[in-house]
Amino acid sequence: MESIKNRRTIRKYQQKDIPEEMLNEMLEISFRASTVGNMQSYSVIVTRDVEMKAKISPAHFDQPMVNQAPVVLTFCADFRRFSRWCEARKAVPGYDNFQSFMNAAIDALLFTQTFCTVAEEKGLGLCYLGTTTYNPKMIIDVLELPKLVFPITTITLGYPDESPEQVDRLPLEAIVHKEYYHDYTASDIDSLYGNKESLDANKKFVEENHKETLAQVFTDIRYTKKVNELTSETLLQAIRYQGFLNE
Amino acid sequence: MESIKNRRTIRKYQQKDIPEEMLNEMLEISFRASTVGNMQSYSVIVTRDVEMKAKISPAHFDQPMVNQAPVVLTFCADFRRFSRWCEARKAVPGYDNFQSFMNAAIDALLFTQTFCTVAEEKGLGLCYLGTTTYNPKMIIDVLELPKLVFPITTITLGYPDESPEQVDRLPLEAIVHKEYYHDYTASDIDSLYGNKESLDANKKFVEENHKETLAQVFTDIRYTKKVNELTSETLLQAIRYQGFLNE
Repeated sequence: MESIKNRRTIRKYQQKDIPEEMLNEMLEISFRASTVGNMQSYSVIVTRDVEMKAKISPAHFDQPMVNQAPVVLTFCADFRRFSRWCEARKAVPGYDNFQSFMNAAIDALLFTQTFCTVAEEKGLGLCYLGTTTYNPKMIIDVLELPKLVFPITTITLGYPDESPEQVDRLPLEAIVHKEYYHDYTASDIDSLYGNKESLDANKKFVEENHKETLAQVFTDIRYTKKVNELTSETLLQAIRYQGFLNE
Repeated sequence: MESIKNRRTIRKYQQKDIPEEMLNEMLEISFRASTVGNMQSYSVIVTRDVEMKAKISPAHFDQPMVNQAPVVLTFCADFRRFSRWCEARKAVPGYDNFQSFMNAAIDALLFTQTFCTVAEEKGLGLCYLGTTTYNPKMIIDVLELPKLVFPITTITLGYPDESPEQVDRLPLEAIVHKEYYHDYTASDIDSLYGNKESLDANKKFVEENHKETLAQVFTDIRYTKKVNELTSETLLQAIRYQGFLNE
């Protein structure tokens, strides 16, 4: 519980390996996460090889964590294995569709997050790479993912070599709705985002980016409409390419 | 760690309430989960009211947990709040697209799974309702979810009133791939699924359903091609309806 309360994203790692036995033990514990119909429709690709890290790095916009971390884990939605089992057992699989993609993605993410909790409890540090859904096709090619296997998220993992400050979060009332969704008024927004906007780190961020507001740093630089729309298209194409939009 | 190793899905709950303070504390701890760009693009709807549970129950195919649990939590991908903030701060949000839907869904699931770990550590029991993506439109209507808010998963939560056996999981080598994806041969499938198929509970399951193999119970009864295809269509329609496929 304490490791959850105190968690920070770790982007710098010691040059110290994670033994295979330790990694496997953590992965096996994480299989205990809930899974739709106990189908375990996920796989994980373990990257330790220096050349493989270099190959996968561009898919993550060459963020330095990929090459620096001793272990990179790519968590995939996977209906391939289950479908192979069905075919070997006189059963006709019907998992080449978007509902199955979502089921498998949910399965993969519950597994991933459980793994992260276990790893952090053991003193490891990690960073999620949201870039996974921005460049899925590159990852599919490098990791040789067959049809019905799709990379959902990636983490870099190692022993921490930094101790960053914990970042801010919104207050409880920003996230929690009682009984039904209560939409936000302008004054709600002011009070819910007030603390975030007042933080020195965020003020500096606005200044450095030559913007007028913190929100503009997000819309104009970090998560732009243009990139979101471009990658929405390539993401859907990749989902179709992997066989999950059989229309 | 022990609560993760020992976890079971709990479908029967004591008639004992979960105090609001305790629930809020667990939710706040769970905000520490990783979130893309610290946008926290999720919301959670807390259902305690008996009438609201009755209204939402059909969306979950009237599984008895919904009405029986003291608390039902619907976890949503949410770019509504963030977009409202942008609009109030002279910034033009660009989150009405599929990439943003995926980012928000991932955020929501990491938050959900962290919450589940925290709740189980505190002695609570829970059940994921995968039905959420099968009937999203009904949930959207009952919970009055506006555009850019989408129900991703639901859990029922309470103090356990049963202690079921722990269910089987596949062996490590079924899930983990070193460096790149190693496809499964027919003999891999035999050895990876052998234990699952040999279990008395699963043999009984095949018999009760008058099937020849366990896989057929999945393909012909539990997760059929027909239902998957129908709900794939309604799921994509609901994602479009909520404004995440602005084409």
